[in-house]
Parts: sequence; structure tokens; C-alpha cells
Amino acid sequence: MTNYDELTEFLLRLGDSALIQAQRLCEWTGRAPALEEEMGMMNVGLDLVGQARNWYEYAAERINDGTDADALAFRRDERAFRNLLLVEQPNGDFAVTMAKQFFYDAWQFHLLTLLKQASDERIAAIATKSLKEVTYHLRRSTQWVERLGDGTQESHERMEKAVDTVWRFTYELMEEGDTERALSASGILPSLATLPELWRSTVKHTLSNATLTLPEPASSFYLNARAGVHSEHLGTLLAEMQFLQRAYPDASW
Amino acid sequence: MTNYDELTEFLLRLGDSALIQAQRLCEWTGRAPALEEEMGMMNVGLDLVGQARNWYEYAAERINDGTDADALAFRRDERAFRNLLLVEQPNGDFAVTMAKQFFYDAWQFHLLTLLKQASDERIAAIATKSLKEVTYHLRRSTQWVERLGDGTQESHERMEKAVDTVWRFTYELMEEGDTERALSASGILPSLATLPELWRSTVKHTLSNATLTLPEPASSFYLNARAGVHSEHLGTLLAEMQFLQRAYPDASW
Repeated sequence: MTNYDELTEFLLRLGDSALIQAQRLCEWTGRAPALEEEMGMMNVGLDLVGQARNWYEYAAERINDGTDADALAFRRDERAFRNLLLVEQPNGDFAVTMAKQFFYDAWQFHLLTLLKQASDERIAAIATKSLKEVTYHLRRSTQWVERLGDGTQESHERMEKAVDTVWRFTYELMEEGDTERALSASGILPSLATLPELWRSTVKHTLSNATLTLPEPASSFYLNARAGVHSEHLGTLLAEMQFLQRAYPDASW
Repeated sequence: MTNYDELTEFLLRLGDSALIQAQRLCEWTGRAPALEEEMGMMNVGLDLVGQARNWYEYAAERINDGTDADALAFRRDERAFRNLLLVEQPNGDFAVTMAKQFFYDAWQFHLLTLLKQASDERIAAIATKSLKEVTYHLRRSTQWVERLGDGTQESHERMEKAVDTVWRFTYELMEEGDTERALSASGILPSLATLPELWRSTVKHTLSNATLTLPEPASSFYLNARAGVHSEHLGTLLAEMQFLQRAYPDASW
């Protein structure tokens, strides 16, 4: 397996997370509770595919072996994907989907806010552009979590259960990895040491407004997305997503 | 089965066609040849869901029995759908998808251009707004048909085959129905009698640029979408699309 430098690994983590989250969102197309929600999810998905492409393009330039954004999206193996475990989890019901979206949006929001200050100008520019979109995404998912959590008894129970269902995958959002620490130490990225605290504070605030219980911080377990050790769901998702490109490499079909 | 008045039937024909076409487009999400195409198809799909919603809202107001746009989209039976047979056909490969898209876009383009002059102001307003989007859709699908038709030998053959595959469903685009004629006669709609000729002229021009054969006008056959007699593909599509709403009516999940 190819070993990339730390910055490239970091770019793939951002791009892969956005792409896989977009993929899960688009599974709702035609199955949303209402046309407005369908359009909302498609819009967020479209933003995220665009963000993924921006991160991939930069990563491809760094890898510099003829690869491009499409090849990174459609021709890598599961073990090469660096996305958060959270975003590869199945959609479940609408509450689970919104819990995943909210946790991811809050993470993106604080991470991109920090990355706007990156000395790497390309990263700062992509972060600035993406943050405008993510600010809207976060507002939307926050409203849904609050509306369902502080809604009917059934919606409250479903939302509480949804948080429980995906919570264990949030440990990655609370973890400053060695890669990030090294990139900060070398001055390429600003310090991301405050990210866990910022994320937890946003989550605490919203869950409280939604009358939902804030669980204790999740602990890491045997899966390790940074090393390509994913849950079984990523393989299934990629098999579907990459079928065409793998069956007909380089064909525009 | 409910009988609606002619204008409502016409609105459902426009809304249903946009929704089903959007649905087929979104099946490409995560399976497109490239990220740019994926985003392109999602964008067109999103426009079409928005157009469907606008037509449905007007139809729901006219039906005036408590129904709304979501109920029209997600809770009607196959027999109640009025979409063009063309848009319910399976995607096939990228060439078939683009052939369907181009034929549909050309039809929408000329129809909406005529409808901008409707004395019914609501229809004129929705047509004007939609036409801006459809002008872009048509430019895009035209470029693809030309690029594939006038491309490599393989892409030419695939595009020619794609046109053959879906051509028989284009007879509906060449047919001025009784409903439309009655609405024109009563002054609600402008005359749509020129639509077949306009559509065929655009198709002829593009297929010629694409070095593709223009088939003879298609003849009608036993399927009749205006009366809810669809190909077997619509049922499958709706079963998937409406599963959630039918399993849990009125639930926001």
C-alpha cells in the first residue's frame, strides 16, 4: 500500500469524509420524508462532493504520479480510504441520519474555522470556501436535532436512540491524531488541539436545547480509520459506488 | 380513481415527468463516470425536484381536498402518475441516460417557452423560472450527445444504440393530446400545436451535429401514460421511492 506524506493523508481524510457523507446523504434521494427535505439533503450532498473534489485535487497534485481527483474517489481500495468511521455508518432512520449529519457538521465547522488560518494558502482557501457551506449545513442539522429531540414523545425517543446508535463513532472527532500534531508542529497547520473541546461544547449546547442526554466522551476501539481499518459498511458502500469505474476503467460510461 | 380537471392533469404531467426524471438522474449518484458529471447530474436533478414541487403545489391547490405536494409525489399509485414514458425508462449506460435527458430537455425547453405566454399567470411564472434552468440542462445534454456521437468509434456506436433504445418512447413528445388541445381552446394555455415540430427540429439539428441518424417519427403503441398505463419500470421505481412514506404515513422518518 502506498504511503503518503502527512499533509496528503490529512487532505484525504477531509476529502474522503466529505465524499462518503455525500454518498450516504444521496441514498435518501427519492426516499426523504418530504420534497423539501429531499432537496435539502441533495443540496448538502452536492456541496460535499464539491468539497471532496477540492481536497482531492490538492492531494492528487501532491501525490504527483498521474492520479487525479476522480481516480482518488473511484479507484482506491477500502484500506486506502481515510474517512471518519462516523460517516460510513448506515443511514438508519431520519433521526440517525440527522445525528450523523449534526456530529459531522459540528466537526467540520470547527475544523474548517481553524484551517482558515493555515499557513498553507491552498488549505486556507478551500477551508474558507467550504466553511460558508458548512455553516448552513450545521444550522440545518442543529435545527433538526432540536426539533426532533424537543418534539413529540416518539420523535424524542427516536432522536435519543439515534444519538446512542452513532455515539461510539464520535471518538475520532475528539481525538487529535499524530498526523495533525505533526503538521501543526511543522507550522503547516495551525494547532488543532482545541478541536475536541470546541466540538463537545457545540454538541453539549445543542443536545441540551433538544432535551437530549449528552453521553460521556466515547472511547476508541479496535477500528482505526486513520490506518484504513474501517467498519464493514464502507466496503459495501464502495462496492456500489465504484462498480462502474472498476468494471470499465477509463471509460466515460 | 380520481378524475381531475384538464388543467390539473396537465400540471401533474409536468410535475410527474420532472420528478421521475430527477429520480432516474439521482440513481447515478456515486456511480457517475467522474465527480464533475456526478455534480452535474445532481444539479439537474435538484432543479427538477424543485420544478416538480412548483407544479405539484399548484395542482394541490386546485384539487383542494387537503392534499399537498408531498402527498402527490409520495402517495399516489402508479396508475395516477402522468409522467412521460420516456423518463421512467431505466438509465442503461451513460449514453442512454444522456439520450433520455436530451430528448426530455428539448421537449421541456420548447414547451416551457410556449407556456411563458400562458394567460394563467401561475403557469407563466413557473415556466419562466423553470426555463432558465432547462436552458442550461439542454445545453449540457446537447454537448454530451454531440461529444459522444462525434467521438470515438465506440462512443459513436453506443450513442447510436442509445438513441435507438429510447426512441420509441418519444412518440409522446410529438403528440398534442386532447387535454392540451382543450386547454388551448379555452384560452388557458397558448396553442401547443407547434411543439412536435419544434422538438423534432432541435433533435434533428443535434443528431446531425453528432453524426447520428435521425429515425423516422415514432408511432404510438399500447402504453398510454396519459391514462396511467405505464411501462413496468415505473412500478419498480415508485415502490422504491415511496417505500418510506407508505410504510410510515405522516411520519417524518
